[in-house]
Amino acid sequence: MAAATDAFTHRDRCAIVGIGATDFSRDSGRSELTLATQAARAALDDAGLTVADIDGIVRCDFDSVTHNALSASLGIRGLSYWGEVGPGGVAPCAMVGQAIGAILSGQASTVLLYRCLNGRSDVRFSAGTAPTVQRPVGGKATYDEFYIPYGLMTPGQLFALMAQRHTIEYGTTPEQLGEIALTCRANANDTPHAQTAGRKLTMSEYLASRMISAPLRLFDFCLESDGACAVIVTSAARARDLRQPPVLIRAVAQGAAADTRGGMMYTAVTRKSLVELPAYTVASKLYERAGLGPQDIDVAQIYDCFTISVLMQLEAFGFCEPGAGGPFVASGAIRRDGSVPINTAGGHLSEGYIHGMNHIVEATRQMRGTGAVQVADAETCLVTGGPFPTSSALILRKA
Amino acid sequence: MAAATDAFTHRDRCAIVGIGATDFSRDSGRSELTLATQAARAALDDAGLTVADIDGIVRCDFDSVTHNALSASLGIRGLSYWGEVGPGGVAPCAMVGQAIGAILSGQASTVLLYRCLNGRSDVRFSAGTAPTVQRPVGGKATYDEFYIPYGLMTPGQLFALMAQRHTIEYGTTPEQLGEIALTCRANANDTPHAQTAGRKLTMSEYLASRMISAPLRLFDFCLESDGACAVIVTSAARARDLRQPPVLIRAVAQGAAADTRGGMMYTAVTRKSLVELPAYTVASKLYERAGLGPQDIDVAQIYDCFTISVLMQLEAFGFCEPGAGGPFVASGAIRRDGSVPINTAGGHLSEGYIHGMNHIVEATRQMRGTGAVQVADAETCLVTGGPFPTSSALILRKA
Repeated sequence: MAAATDAFTHRDRCAIVGIGATDFSRDSGRSELTLATQAARAALDDAGLTVADIDGIVRCDFDSVTHNALSASLGIRGLSYWGEVGPGGVAPCAMVGQAIGAILSGQASTVLLYRCLNGRSDVRFSAGTAPTVQRPVGGKATYDEFYIPYGLMTPGQLFALMAQRHTIEYGTTPEQLGEIALTCRANANDTPHAQTAGRKLTMSEYLASRMISAPLRLFDFCLESDGACAVIVTSAARARDLRQPPVLIRAVAQGAAADTRGGMMYTAVTRKSLVELPAYTVASKLYERAGLGPQDIDVAQIYDCFTISVLMQLEAFGFCEPGAGGPFVASGAIRRDGSVPINTAGGHLSEGYIHGMNHIVEATRQMRGTGAVQVADAETCLVTGGPFPTSSALILRKA
Repeated sequence: MAAATDAFTHRDRCAIVGIGATDFSRDSGRSELTLATQAARAALDDAGLTVADIDGIVRCDFDSVTHNALSASLGIRGLSYWGEVGPGGVAPCAMVGQAIGAILSGQASTVLLYRCLNGRSDVRFSAGTAPTVQRPVGGKATYDEFYIPYGLMTPGQLFALMAQRHTIEYGTTPEQLGEIALTCRANANDTPHAQTAGRKLTMSEYLASRMISAPLRLFDFCLESDGACAVIVTSAARARDLRQPPVLIRAVAQGAAADTRGGMMYTAVTRKSLVELPAYTVASKLYERAGLGPQDIDVAQIYDCFTISVLMQLEAFGFCEPGAGGPFVASGAIRRDGSVPINTAGGHLSEGYIHGMNHIVEATRQMRGTGAVQVADAETCLVTGGPFPTSSALILRKA
């Protein structure tokens, strides 16, 4: 087709103005709708806004709470925009992108994003999946039937295959994966709201933990959690008048691999090369939109459903060469005093698994300078959405 | 909060440049993924674009085909944006809105929208629903458990309650509802691809048809159908260089009632007044964004899951006073030679039920001047998404 004659951009045109979270636990004792409502109210309080200011909602496709239900629970009257995106943990950064689209096209002015789940006390991702369960999000058109009957049913098993491949191709060691677990744990130890606050983890404990799906051990797995997070996005211009220092959304990107069959992650283990993963596509698109590169990133929240996920994304986002993630993390580069401190509140591995949304909340804290484990003088924060066949990421910037 | 200091708009900034559809039938004999792929390819051919031009996909939340599956089926490499919206028939107009947001914020340049369903040969909406089925789209947080156990299970039953109420409050007659069915059928009779092409319907046949859920008869119900439709959206600037005369998207609106509990339509029958329905909110927002009013609409595609749905939306969108829909349609106003011709290809009632998407396809034909039942000199076309607790609508305009 003809060359584009227009150049649309969202760089720095919207901002995160409110963040909220419930406690993260193994048993919240309340419904997911209650969790979402509490997180949303906390975000409104944080922003100095009221329910009447919210005219848009964007949700994660895996969430059990609809925009209708949350809207009614909060008492929102007259929603102007709603939408959703997924799958699952890929959603949060993409939800920010969708909110930006709604705002910059005049369809909403102030958009609420949320993710709530009783991921430990109710439906656990680790319980595996059956084709019928996936049908509403595309079951008949995915390829689950080619691997679920053979026992490849849980995210842990699929990421273990990625880790096996990374180990075979690049010589990645258990100690290198362990360094990621320990870094996240050390940050969580100093973060009061983290589920593992104060509960230290040593390398020998990591190595001695039980093997769940080789080469992934117990501490390579994230914490299935109950909890909710909420984020409020508005235009950069409106953000200037609100309670908190606005945190600008420098850029957002979604991206898919060339072959996206298999829904969540099937082709991530069968494709020719690990550098064909969409995280590479997302990274280059994101940096181009942001006018920034990995050298400009002061702190990062890397999607850590499993330690191997972090390793592969550090490579994809250019913090080290492809395959060099192991030595890179072993050097201490991702620790709080390293060149790119990651998951400063402990992340999914040690803070809680709110399916990517807690990473955006923590990224906002870092840009405000209010993190419990605060990276000094941090002005840019990367948030990523996983290494799957589809992915997403964003960069926040201190205004 | 402080007054907005920015004014974002999407008026006439994007366009529909491609439309495609499969045959509509009672048994397609092929998968929904195949249907979606065929409709998408037809839309690409129509636009003079190739698969390589598509960098965004927006889908309906009820669709069984994911963006991943369709992307792989078409051979799209490197999708930049995807998202979804619902519920169900509310999606299509809102999907156009989401595509506009993606384009105007620089997240995609050319976005494919689709809806595919084997709605007759596979899962039928009329089969009713059970709370567990709805869970993935919000089951636990909806209020299905308060009406499904009492037998209120199908859309037809819920719309019958709305029709009863409209009859009680305004004296609406069977002949008035029948006029809507007959108008759609007459248009379909002259539309070769419509499922009822050539199959005439008389008022006596309508009145004699079996009562399904009083006061709604067989011919008050839409045609559960197998089929798919696809639409391609890009910026108005890019649209100028493509094969078809661009059809500008004048404005889009989504809207929710003040109380959105109950998912699809619960509160539509229990709220204090029928004029609190969100279609009224959507109409005023849409007309304001478009800078147009009902007097400016040359032709309309009104969401017609049931005849009563059309009646209530004609009132909500200001073509007549609230409650006056019966006499309005009885006057012949909605016929092809009336003041606001509707559902020119036969609509859901007589063309096929592709869940709102076929209305956008037909609206585009009308703006190109290529409808089988073409409204002469039509320059604006309204498309609506139903009278439910949440709704959507858009206005297309001849460039």
